[in-house]
Amino acid sequence: MPAETTSRGRPRDARSHAAILAAAADLVTETGYAAMSLGAVATRARVGKDTIYRRWSGKAELVYEAVFTTTDTAPVPDTGTLESDLTVLVQQLIDEFSAPPAAAALPGLLADFAAAPQLRARIRSAFLAPAKQRLASVFERAQARGEMGLSVETDLVLDALVGTVFFRMGILGEPASLQLARSVARIAAKGIEPR
Amino acid sequence: MPAETTSRGRPRDARSHAAILAAAADLVTETGYAAMSLGAVATRARVGKDTIYRRWSGKAELVYEAVFTTTDTAPVPDTGTLESDLTVLVQQLIDEFSAPPAAAALPGLLADFAAAPQLRARIRSAFLAPAKQRLASVFERAQARGEMGLSVETDLVLDALVGTVFFRMGILGEPASLQLARSVARIAAKGIEPR
Repeated sequence: MPAETTSRGRPRDARSHAAILAAAADLVTETGYAAMSLGAVATRARVGKDTIYRRWSGKAELVYEAVFTTTDTAPVPDTGTLESDLTVLVQQLIDEFSAPPAAAALPGLLADFAAAPQLRARIRSAFLAPAKQRLASVFERAQARGEMGLSVETDLVLDALVGTVFFRMGILGEPASLQLARSVARIAAKGIEPR
Repeated sequence: MPAETTSRGRPRDARSHAAILAAAADLVTETGYAAMSLGAVATRARVGKDTIYRRWSGKAELVYEAVFTTTDTAPVPDTGTLESDLTVLVQQLIDEFSAPPAAAALPGLLADFAAAPQLRARIRSAFLAPAKQRLASVFERAQARGEMGLSVETDLVLDALVGTVFFRMGILGEPASLQLARSVARIAAKGIEPR
């Protein structure tokens, strides 16, 4: 959200931006994705419907931002080791996928995503690229500490962390064990150590 | 497919089983998931509709098997190193996700999956568990060669491989680079080396 607020809306809009996201997260949880209308979001957030359409391409993008960027405002982990930084990141992903809005949003959101290449491109550029950029310092610090090889594709590492949590929780519907974040982070951190 | 043919249908049914799967893969590619009917599958495969319902719980399970178990009949990789065995596995996953039936099936299949916990449980037990069991020898050989720690959760490693490919290709819609299989396999193999 923070990068979007400055790049896509003016600071004085931040309050209505937050209100719209909160309304979207609440409504998708209450009614499910298919039944949720942008009119209802506008009413609950006390904004005009065109305020929503000025900022989001449609329901899918709004719900994505409301549900899956909640940790984008959390401090970037800086625990002193790559493995425990990654553990924090994976735990944040688990928390996001465990939250009721994610479970409510996922079926419809996945169908919309899979059917709309333009929407996926938009999500990649508007949300995923900035989120990855934001985490660059985790890998820079790891490299400075000698924990990481030089040729590591950090983009792929982040996709692997998200993909693992997403597949386990979002697709297979398995509950996240306490152990999951630690195991995934341990394998990833060791996997990108210098050879 | 092979495990299912013996456990869920008699050998003499193998030909109609294969014909039904081929018809389902063709039809979902031609018409998309939503428009595909089990009646049309039955007609094309020259079987009765009840033959389909005896074997599959419904469209989602049939399409899943038709589209996402195509490599379950491939030989289990045994190249001599864990890293290249995993490269072969990831390449198989990439091929499966790159095939036209997967692209055609994914939107509807994901929506059905996300909305139906029972379906996910069925897919886990009928397809994913046997597929993982089938790959146990890859890790047993790696352990015998000293390439792998003793406490590795191989189930998680396989979910991570699938999840990474699935997230990149199925969700983000990114084309698979030639490099992807090798990079993912390298990180995973190194990530589970003995400490």
